[in-house]
Amino acid sequence: MIVIMKMDHTQEQSDAVIARVQELGLKPQTIHGESRSVIAVLGQVLPEYRDELATIDGVDEVLRVSKPYKLSSREVHPDDSVIELSNGVRVGGGRPVFMAGPCSIESEEQLWAAAKGVRAAGAHLLRGGAFKPRSSPYSFQGLGVPALKMLSAAGAEMGMPVITELLSVRDVDAVAQYSDVLQIGARNMQNFVLLEEAGKTGKTVMLKRGLAGTIEEWLLAAEYILSQDNPNVILCERGIRTFETATRNTLDLNAIALVKRLSHLPVISDPSHGTGKWYLVRPMSMASIAVGADGLMIEVHPNPDHALSDGAQSLTPANFAELADEARALAVAVGRPFAETSPALV
Amino acid sequence: MIVIMKMDHTQEQSDAVIARVQELGLKPQTIHGESRSVIAVLGQVLPEYRDELATIDGVDEVLRVSKPYKLSSREVHPDDSVIELSNGVRVGGGRPVFMAGPCSIESEEQLWAAAKGVRAAGAHLLRGGAFKPRSSPYSFQGLGVPALKMLSAAGAEMGMPVITELLSVRDVDAVAQYSDVLQIGARNMQNFVLLEEAGKTGKTVMLKRGLAGTIEEWLLAAEYILSQDNPNVILCERGIRTFETATRNTLDLNAIALVKRLSHLPVISDPSHGTGKWYLVRPMSMASIAVGADGLMIEVHPNPDHALSDGAQSLTPANFAELADEARALAVAVGRPFAETSPALV
Amino acid sequence: MIVIMKMDHTQEQSDAVIARVQELGLKPQTIHGESRSVIAVLGQVLPEYRDELATIDGVDEVLRVSKPYKLSSREVHPDDSVIELSNGVRVGGGRPVFMAGPCSIESEEQLWAAAKGVRAAGAHLLRGGAFKPRSSPYSFQGLGVPALKMLSAAGAEMGMPVITELLSVRDVDAVAQYSDVLQIGARNMQNFVLLEEAGKTGKTVMLKRGLAGTIEEWLLAAEYILSQDNPNVILCERGIRTFETATRNTLDLNAIALVKRLSHLPVISDPSHGTGKWYLVRPMSMASIAVGADGLMIEVHPNPDHALSDGAQSLTPANFAELADEARALAVAVGRPFAETSPALV
Amino acid sequence: MIVIMKMDHTQEQSDAVIARVQELGLKPQTIHGESRSVIAVLGQVLPEYRDELATIDGVDEVLRVSKPYKLSSREVHPDDSVIELSNGVRVGGGRPVFMAGPCSIESEEQLWAAAKGVRAAGAHLLRGGAFKPRSSPYSFQGLGVPALKMLSAAGAEMGMPVITELLSVRDVDAVAQYSDVLQIGARNMQNFVLLEEAGKTGKTVMLKRGLAGTIEEWLLAAEYILSQDNPNVILCERGIRTFETATRNTLDLNAIALVKRLSHLPVISDPSHGTGKWYLVRPMSMASIAVGADGLMIEVHPNPDHALSDGAQSLTPANFAELADEARALAVAVGRPFAETSPALV
Repeated sequence: MIVIMKMDHTQEQSDAVIARVQELGLKPQTIHGESRSVIAVLGQVLPEYRDELATIDGVDEVLRVSKPYKLSSREVHPDDSVIELSNGVRVGGGRPVFMAGPCSIESEEQLWAAAKGVRAAGAHLLRGGAFKPRSSPYSFQGLGVPALKMLSAAGAEMGMPVITELLSVRDVDAVAQYSDVLQIGARNMQNFVLLEEAGKTGKTVMLKRGLAGTIEEWLLAAEYILSQDNPNVILCERGIRTFETATRNTLDLNAIALVKRLSHLPVISDPSHGTGKWYLVRPMSMASIAVGADGLMIEVHPNPDHALSDGAQSLTPANFAELADEARALAVAVGRPFAETSPALV
Repeated sequence: MIVIMKMDHTQEQSDAVIARVQELGLKPQTIHGESRSVIAVLGQVLPEYRDELATIDGVDEVLRVSKPYKLSSREVHPDDSVIELSNGVRVGGGRPVFMAGPCSIESEEQLWAAAKGVRAAGAHLLRGGAFKPRSSPYSFQGLGVPALKMLSAAGAEMGMPVITELLSVRDVDAVAQYSDVLQIGARNMQNFVLLEEAGKTGKTVMLKRGLAGTIEEWLLAAEYILSQDNPNVILCERGIRTFETATRNTLDLNAIALVKRLSHLPVISDPSHGTGKWYLVRPMSMASIAVGADGLMIEVHPNPDHALSDGAQSLTPANFAELADEARALAVAVGRPFAETSPALV
Repeated sequence: MIVIMKMDHTQEQSDAVIARVQELGLKPQTIHGESRSVIAVLGQVLPEYRDELATIDGVDEVLRVSKPYKLSSREVHPDDSVIELSNGVRVGGGRPVFMAGPCSIESEEQLWAAAKGVRAAGAHLLRGGAFKPRSSPYSFQGLGVPALKMLSAAGAEMGMPVITELLSVRDVDAVAQYSDVLQIGARNMQNFVLLEEAGKTGKTVMLKRGLAGTIEEWLLAAEYILSQDNPNVILCERGIRTFETATRNTLDLNAIALVKRLSHLPVISDPSHGTGKWYLVRPMSMASIAVGADGLMIEVHPNPDHALSDGAQSLTPANFAELADEARALAVAVGRPFAETSPALV
Repeated sequence: MIVIMKMDHTQEQSDAVIARVQELGLKPQTIHGESRSVIAVLGQVLPEYRDELATIDGVDEVLRVSKPYKLSSREVHPDDSVIELSNGVRVGGGRPVFMAGPCSIESEEQLWAAAKGVRAAGAHLLRGGAFKPRSSPYSFQGLGVPALKMLSAAGAEMGMPVITELLSVRDVDAVAQYSDVLQIGARNMQNFVLLEEAGKTGKTVMLKRGLAGTIEEWLLAAEYILSQDNPNVILCERGIRTFETATRNTLDLNAIALVKRLSHLPVISDPSHGTGKWYLVRPMSMASIAVGADGLMIEVHPNPDHALSDGAQSLTPANFAELADEARALAVAVGRPFAETSPALV
């Protein structure tokens, strides 16, 4: 931590900073520059110290030197984490995967149509929402536990691990019972109680980046899960909120490239939510693989114009199959071919 | 809802839109403009219809006409809502209130020092955090239920209703038992399960705006609480996230002015979180009262440079007393004087 | 400047940093922290050094310690700057002023109707656009030099200094001939050639903050004018671009409060552009005065529903007169009454 | 245009809207929905009408139906525009190009080292800055006309068309004399006078997207150039400003995918400015080609740690050569191979 003093600070003021630093059990070291003095603070710095020192008279600003996240950092854990799921599916380590399926599970019929389609096209995981976070209380909210059961059955039948969103600590047991991967949605990236409870299940957790979540906050949120002695964390970039409204969100591929450098955790890209427009899903999928994503999460619905949620960003199974073919070709060209799948069962 | 067709759409495509609109039980009405045709959709429109229609070939864009929120709208409920709390404290209806106290409750001693200070300075509600959402798992997380008890006791002794954050559905009963107002923090603005459970308690709920929450999403989130037959909702603007980092957040007073027009719910301003800098709290408090806020929520700590959270944005009791004097004078000048308080007990 | 080394950097890498720092004529000082080493760089640091050092292997990040702006800084110039204009009008120093008039000058009749209205209501400066920056080439672009002449004549007749936008270096002489204050619009905040040329005229320059301009960039832009030996700079906050679209822009009053602390320059608030909605202009004007703005710039049009630009955010003269009365009362209450005006001439 | 009336509007208010619409020479058509009435406005709508109608009492909101840009729209011009430059270089039409060279031209030696390096690696255009827009007046501002001459000579010698930034209308003639392509920088995206003057030269103009420029504003800015009877416009995405500060900007690949759909103009990606970090340039270059960009603009400097500007985001010639090889392989895999270059001359 570096405490920058104001140009006109007094000796008493810098003494007060030094005294407080020492009281915290840390070591101050003063450096006199041409126009300013700074006090370097050495030792184990807790996050709150920065705020505290900023309130002392004569202090202009306090800068942090250490990174606040540890378990998710590549500095601590240089090798890629690889998450092992059922049916031999692995996430991370250089070979991308497809996670695909409907936004919401609406019926047996709809789920199975989507599941068969994505399995045939080479998807590795089956996604499907049972509990849906909706901006409006008047929108469809998901079928709940019955949908979890359908999803689990479909995944078992198709030989695909499944992933679904965990919306509340209330549902941790149910979701953990039926799903291989617990998804934490963007709106819950900083629902810290939920992160801890998800982490305690020992299940794999996929943590989406919040609409206004910085990369640092995202890695700190992952830290809440990892610190439950659960190393099975996958990150998912799904678009941030910016001033641009021509796309629903701004899928931030810069973040994927940077996080692959800062962290050892796998990072999935979600171009469906990231763009909100089905016709942008294909090009942004290609770009995601090119930038180094460990996989794609794609919304697929047999009849997007009848979807109870996210119709505008859903692909048909046929469109998904085309996308998958193109993505596989691209992945080979960049030397990171998609993971293999067992032969399709249906 | 207005469906805008592409310039080069075919008759079959507009027929398909019309057919789907009729299938949904709605009435289509086609309008041929100079360069484009649009199809107006009449009837009770559910939010998901917009997404569905957007996927039909030949459709360029679908615009919404109705506002998606109802119970929180001033169109439906023209008069200001006024929330009645204990000790005769009322929120809303043109007479602002002060909510003040420490960010986190750290000890009996710290809480009482802050509480006595803010009571003497004229605060109406006592705030204090028991469960703290912290970006880092390595930061102080709050004292939990013991802090709730301290807060409740201090409020009772001082004659002030109390407010504290509800962080998880897990804690609804405990927080509802000890607190007059349940605060939903910015990170949980779209934690819809929490909103519903908070609403069901029948207690007053103060809903903070999320860092990336649009005004429309904020009012829709309020709708989740109101639709539990709980009319006791207070809104709180606490700063949004923008590109500017010189302030911690950007306290959005435009939003307060606009929400007072769109909604009948009281709106509180939180300049402590909104700016993140104690020296900006006073000017932004003045501005908040001038723009029409129904009250101020201010963090006050007896020793900001020893605070376990948010030290940089906390005022001392003495600074708060000065701020309160100035705010009262301003409020009189704009014709919306602060609510009276019963004589201080201590 | 502080160079933070990676945790696993080598001795050769830190030696390379030290060598480069010495080559630049600066003094390196290494500090070994618990988990990281940093190298403090002492001496006159040019902005580009930061980028250069960041490219050396083993460097994690380079932090700046000094503020990059000087002439606009309150550290260098502690007292408020006060700008003297014609007719005894002064901007800055604690007594706010009104700048009011039409967005665009459309005709003699329209200009005079607006000018008489705002003069009668107590405005100090007359504003009016002759050259208009419009997003679309198909929108009204302003009347140009003839409008400058009308504005100048109206100001002289009414006894008000005038302000108008300077859009291009091409027009510097014409605008400087007819206008007391040269306004640099938000889109040109970083049009550095224009800033320099405006500065060279010696005229007062009002510099609007860009839609995506940070406070630091804004003060650096002011530095371009000030460094032409022209101390007559006024700043103007007019709203930044954020994710929120319910208001046209987000008028950032936090910035006004902070800039009053960081700089000695006067700061005007423009709630017309800041909100884009005429019904939010009054409350945000009140808030601007409360937060410490040195004045208000308000768009006034005799017939907003016939305005060729910015109709939606323009007030009628009658609405402006009401606003002015309320703002004056508020200004008295906060101890910073509006500047006096000479008796109205018409 | 669609005028949405308030729920409680009066007959007089809707009559006033209709009268004003007719006065503007347009045709109103009223539609009565379940909860609201709207008035569709048919005919040639000017941009300012929307603002005007919004001020009439009883109006809630005015929505636009037509797109405001025309010449840049794919609806009007369905086929890709292809720009022909010297030496047989073509931009647009499905075969990407490399534009590479130093951020600033610092000396003959530096320019030639960079130019030879990028030519050998297969670059099609040579870039180099002569006039530099710098946030601080104390930073290096470019060498001006002498740099233009060096650039022109190097391009001629190497057989590469050259591109450099045009910063001011003052320099139009000089830049047009020496450069094949005039670059309009992000800060000048809405410097409309500059756009018009650049357009009038008839030279190819590359228009960068502003830091806060929406896609619609960007296309409207292109319209300023195109409407000078100059069809030779190239767009360039170079990163937008968002809340994320871990990258210098957020390179918005969603925008490239969307603009390729909305417009016929070629779109170049600039990952150097887009990310601000040399180690993110390679992955974001790959992603840019995958998403459909018509080329890459890359900053290359022989000694990034001695660069007078943008050192942190510059590649060495060797790194650029590696990037070019990988990008070419990817481009082949996605069926849009890079344009050929004539055999290198040096």
